[in-house]
Amino acid sequence: MWQIERTTYEPEKRLVEESLFTVGNGYLGVRGCFEEGTHASSMRGTYINGLYDRVPMRHAEMAYGFPEIQDKQPRIIDTQTCEVYLDDERVTLKSKRYRDYVRRLDYRKGLSERRYVFKTKSGKEGEVSFERLASLTRKNLLIYRIKVVYNGKIELRSKIDCNIQNRGNTKDPRVGAGHMRLMKTLNIAKQDNQIKCLMETAHTRIEQATVVRYQVMSKGAEVPLVHLTNETEAMTIVTGHDEMVMEKLCIFTDGLRHGDAMSAAEALAEENLETDFSKLCAEQSDFLDRYWAVSDIEIFGDDRAQISVRFMLFQLLQSVGTDAYSNISAKGLSGAGYEGHYFWDTEIYVLPIMQMTQPEIAESLLKYRHRILPMAGKRARELGHAKGVAYPWRTISGIECSGYFPAGTAQYHINADIAYAFIQHYLYNEDLDFMADYGLEVLFETARLWWAIGSFHRGEFMIHSVTGPDEYTALVSNNYYTNAMAKYNLTWAVKLYEIFSKLGGERHEKFKALCERLSLDDAEIDRMRDSAEHMYFAYDAVMDLYAQDDTFLTKPVWPFRDTPKDHYPLLLYFHPLTIYRHQVLKQADTLLAHFLLEDYVTDLQISNAYSYYEPLTTHDSSLSTCIYGIMASRCGREKQAESFFMESLRLDLDDTHHNTKDGLHMANMGGTLLGVVAGFSGLRIKEEGLVFRPTCPGMWQGYRYHIKYKARLLEVHVTESTFKLKCLSGKPLEVEIFGEKYLVENEVNIGTKNEGG
Amino acid sequence: MWQIERTTYEPEKRLVEESLFTVGNGYLGVRGCFEEGTHASSMRGTYINGLYDRVPMRHAEMAYGFPEIQDKQPRIIDTQTCEVYLDDERVTLKSKRYRDYVRRLDYRKGLSERRYVFKTKSGKEGEVSFERLASLTRKNLLIYRIKVVYNGKIELRSKIDCNIQNRGNTKDPRVGAGHMRLMKTLNIAKQDNQIKCLMETAHTRIEQATVVRYQVMSKGAEVPLVHLTNETEAMTIVTGHDEMVMEKLCIFTDGLRHGDAMSAAEALAEENLETDFSKLCAEQSDFLDRYWAVSDIEIFGDDRAQISVRFMLFQLLQSVGTDAYSNISAKGLSGAGYEGHYFWDTEIYVLPIMQMTQPEIAESLLKYRHRILPMAGKRARELGHAKGVAYPWRTISGIECSGYFPAGTAQYHINADIAYAFIQHYLYNEDLDFMADYGLEVLFETARLWWAIGSFHRGEFMIHSVTGPDEYTALVSNNYYTNAMAKYNLTWAVKLYEIFSKLGGERHEKFKALCERLSLDDAEIDRMRDSAEHMYFAYDAVMDLYAQDDTFLTKPVWPFRDTPKDHYPLLLYFHPLTIYRHQVLKQADTLLAHFLLEDYVTDLQISNAYSYYEPLTTHDSSLSTCIYGIMASRCGREKQAESFFMESLRLDLDDTHHNTKDGLHMANMGGTLLGVVAGFSGLRIKEEGLVFRPTCPGMWQGYRYHIKYKARLLEVHVTESTFKLKCLSGKPLEVEIFGEKYLVENEVNIGTKNEGG
Repeated sequence: MWQIERTTYEPEKRLVEESLFTVGNGYLGVRGCFEEGTHASSMRGTYINGLYDRVPMRHAEMAYGFPEIQDKQPRIIDTQTCEVYLDDERVTLKSKRYRDYVRRLDYRKGLSERRYVFKTKSGKEGEVSFERLASLTRKNLLIYRIKVVYNGKIELRSKIDCNIQNRGNTKDPRVGAGHMRLMKTLNIAKQDNQIKCLMETAHTRIEQATVVRYQVMSKGAEVPLVHLTNETEAMTIVTGHDEMVMEKLCIFTDGLRHGDAMSAAEALAEENLETDFSKLCAEQSDFLDRYWAVSDIEIFGDDRAQISVRFMLFQLLQSVGTDAYSNISAKGLSGAGYEGHYFWDTEIYVLPIMQMTQPEIAESLLKYRHRILPMAGKRARELGHAKGVAYPWRTISGIECSGYFPAGTAQYHINADIAYAFIQHYLYNEDLDFMADYGLEVLFETARLWWAIGSFHRGEFMIHSVTGPDEYTALVSNNYYTNAMAKYNLTWAVKLYEIFSKLGGERHEKFKALCERLSLDDAEIDRMRDSAEHMYFAYDAVMDLYAQDDTFLTKPVWPFRDTPKDHYPLLLYFHPLTIYRHQVLKQADTLLAHFLLEDYVTDLQISNAYSYYEPLTTHDSSLSTCIYGIMASRCGREKQAESFFMESLRLDLDDTHHNTKDGLHMANMGGTLLGVVAGFSGLRIKEEGLVFRPTCPGMWQGYRYHIKYKARLLEVHVTESTFKLKCLSGKPLEVEIFGEKYLVENEVNIGTKNEGG
Repeated sequence: MWQIERTTYEPEKRLVEESLFTVGNGYLGVRGCFEEGTHASSMRGTYINGLYDRVPMRHAEMAYGFPEIQDKQPRIIDTQTCEVYLDDERVTLKSKRYRDYVRRLDYRKGLSERRYVFKTKSGKEGEVSFERLASLTRKNLLIYRIKVVYNGKIELRSKIDCNIQNRGNTKDPRVGAGHMRLMKTLNIAKQDNQIKCLMETAHTRIEQATVVRYQVMSKGAEVPLVHLTNETEAMTIVTGHDEMVMEKLCIFTDGLRHGDAMSAAEALAEENLETDFSKLCAEQSDFLDRYWAVSDIEIFGDDRAQISVRFMLFQLLQSVGTDAYSNISAKGLSGAGYEGHYFWDTEIYVLPIMQMTQPEIAESLLKYRHRILPMAGKRARELGHAKGVAYPWRTISGIECSGYFPAGTAQYHINADIAYAFIQHYLYNEDLDFMADYGLEVLFETARLWWAIGSFHRGEFMIHSVTGPDEYTALVSNNYYTNAMAKYNLTWAVKLYEIFSKLGGERHEKFKALCERLSLDDAEIDRMRDSAEHMYFAYDAVMDLYAQDDTFLTKPVWPFRDTPKDHYPLLLYFHPLTIYRHQVLKQADTLLAHFLLEDYVTDLQISNAYSYYEPLTTHDSSLSTCIYGIMASRCGREKQAESFFMESLRLDLDDTHHNTKDGLHMANMGGTLLGVVAGFSGLRIKEEGLVFRPTCPGMWQGYRYHIKYKARLLEVHVTESTFKLKCLSGKPLEVEIFGEKYLVENEVNIGTKNEGG
């Protein structure tokens, strides 16, 4: 229940497993490639969150405001390799002479391990094991432990490879384009039991330093090391017999955070003189015990679901940045897909999970957005807007890196998505200081964007030439999602302006100073209120349905029956124009707005939207099924909710999108976990308080999770027949369950919908 | 009246003059660069119409169906240079020691000449003159004649340069991107008085051969030549005294048309052993006498307009391809702008002028479109359409070369534009054989496209995700121009199907065979009729106005008052999204449809469209003012008509768009000439016959032109007070003038609108 495990090695799954068995700590991540080599192609990768190089972005036809450079997450130095030789014979799985293979990613221990018994050509057997751990407490540290037991000569050849390229695929827009050398080696040095490598990003010239410290024991005695280095590689060779253990402690630093990266790495090496594998293991377990105690989502009666849910929680934890330099990229730190860029995935799919029990991480993610505000402002000016900000659709450093604006820059909704996350944070914590320091500025500046791109027509506020979350329709007028989220953004900018206007003390001073700096006044707030109040939504009265945009409902439905099964995702088989002119969705759009902003519509309208849009959705995006699952729950379609949930749950573990090799789908993970919380238990965080509509999936006996909410710790426990809400700490709380108000002093117990709701 | 002339050399205008003084013959064209050099940058260029190389097209983000290669018109071998030395001193204008400078492009002689008196440092004077002629009768021949009279030593150094690159500009989408070497030198040889160069296009490996034959006389005696050649250049040096004349006959061939290009060039050299400058001059004059006799547009009482109108007629003649391998590119053969690509400019702006008096050229242009049908079919398949063709928005060889599909492939209207030109050709000539051989297939296959991309919604036929002629709005639903032109395309496909169904003989056999080959049957024709009849048009009843598209009228008007004058063209200063979300036009769109298809609307609707759309139009496109001028005439706004006409007339001659250096604006030229014919005299070619609404601009005493129409030669002569229509040959004809029918037996004389209309 606390690990994924493989007891066979299936070569054709090796690339997918490289992603699945990633270890990371939010700062660094390393794919689960084989230390001893696989004798087959591998998609090796080690990444530092937030580190970026920039390369020119070339357009077939240039136009004003198209980005001319883009960030790329570089693969950094590869410290994974450690070849093993038994009596001079190389150990590889290719030989097929092995038994008792097992591989695990352990969520409680926070490490991955792999072991097997290898039989040499002469028939002798040796045990080999590989463990690796990215420390969650000492974020710069990654450690490998290689252990070999063999009655004969044992030789280990550990490699530190600086000759690193990013790989790409010129055909698939979801992967980076072309192979590129993004890291340059400045220096490789050997010193006693250490290898020190200083590199820098090729264009941005951000330093990245690595110190690798070896400790090798053979039969309990330390073994002398031989280092061979050249300009791009360092090889360390040790020989022994009977039993050998190598610990390879890798310390990574970078110029973004650490100034002089090598000095910082050396200082960390000094600090960690006593740090070894067992010490890091102990710390890791302690950390994870504390983590799981509050952040676990327990599933009762379905072990597979439990393992999968925890896999997601663990992988999100491994990938999420916890400083202002980093965020969580579309593939976390588990692969090169989407170039390591950060998208709206953060705010709409991952942050809601962090908000529940890891408010510090949530804050850190929000601070990242605040940090890049100046760049978003500059981008807004480039786009011709006198005021406000235009957050980049995809970025690492803060610049717009989208090469195809109809499904990039045109997705202005990212501004409202970020604003939404700040508002959710406020609703969770009522933290006025955080809002004064970070939230207000983001909310005001994003709200301004709507005024810049929207306009009144016959008394209604319209927003033209945008693309909603559904990228299978682009550059439309009045995308429902965009308009609804913009309305919310505007409404809350006004609301917080009013709240802070009435506050006293330091917060008010900060607020006043901010308004002055932004030249924001009552008149502009009035305009915001006005546009929010008169926001236009395309609506079909016959169907009582909000239209995805002004012309969506007049388009023909995609010819699903004539589309071969192997022609999905459509984007890889049809020209954008062919896709755009049909009613077909890549992922939830209007319905996603109905999830995030259910009070803008009636239950019937939500249900109508589900019935209308779901059959039009290909779910070609990994961000889709999770939302449809949640909304199926919302509409009381329990079987569909379960089915979508299961689909989302196994997306990476079963590689159902055939691209898990490029990295794990972070947004899907967040969205799937939301499937339990917002889907099955129906949790919404509203201004009026918490709202639940709990159900228990038929395949489960129950589930349990916690929320930190306004200085309280709540426990939610749903079973087949009951909904229990406990207030484990903090003051009593009023919540809404199935539309009824309940005061939770210690515990509230009611029947779930399956029974009596 | 038959030439443009410059009597001063203004260095800062040299690049514009290089375009203006282009000589060409539809097959080859050479910019008016200085033989003796300018000691300043030059945009040298010699081009062969239809010759293309192909280079990879790289996209910042790839998507399915994006073109991966593109055609580029290569600069070919440069034979222009001939340096002149007087007593070993180089003659250049840079010295400023010259007098009596004059430069002419002569439309009747069909050549350009340039002459001046140069004063050496020692104060001696020499006369130099440069003439060049691209033969309109022998299309492979270009000849330079350099004459020097000087009392002393004269040396000429003529260069043939194979070291050729295309130039580019990465910022301006209207110019090609990046410098590129598109021609490779295979061989340079000297033989007696000839230099022979064999080159080939770098990627497509199409041969291009050049034979240059020198004839040099000094004081009446032939002068020995010295050829110096290396791998990329041949220099021929001659010395004499007192008077020297060099004739440099250049014969160009290419592998597209001539198979073994060098053998063909050598054969042509043999054939033209006796051909010299005086002979070519005589032929050229004869040819042009015949041309002007029928194709001239005479303007009375306005010499400047007369010169400008003839300049346009002449430059179109110089640029227009007359074989199935070539067409007329956006800049003709006068520059590298738009990469030498062919656009809809041909069918909507240039062809109508050719149709009037040069039906063979018109046919040739149409045959080019027929020739590339298979490629247009392949493109339709790529776009996911089971049937029909999708003509490339821009191309040389027939492949789609547009790198930005929202203002490229999405302009599906090019299919209807091509169909329209075939229909106009039919209306002019009633040539059923041409239709059987070429027209029907194009009409049926283009009509099919509308069925592929359109769809019925509540009984109306809609077309989504297209871009109309106005590229300042993109990817819209039901663009008026597109829908109207599609309706016409469909209607005529049906009409001609019916006509040919009833025909007998060989034509019917061809028709039957075609339908069989295309699997076209009555049922499909019924569907075409049905969609044409139920074509949807967005319409505003309050304004009695056809909307440019479904959402156009709900967008805010562009903030013209806040836009600095130096921020035009908008496309160079604003992001496409900013432009797209406003009511702002780059060029006529709905109004252009009202011009081409006036019977789809009422006079009031035309007038309303003019009043509504004109103030929203920036005329950033060179295709705009000419159409607005025509439609101002149509709406009786005579002052505006004159003003737009004058603006269009001087666009290149006064370089009002600041990019004439990149080449002349062919579409504007065609459109301006249409300003006389379709604008002032109000000519329309309809199924019912010719329609006139003649007016005479206040600044003119009158104008006169001819039309070949259904085996007749007609003369139209408009004066301030009368409209005379003469039938110079052929049977009597009924025409409509100001809505009244007149039978023209010999001549019809009525008052123009200014008087009694």
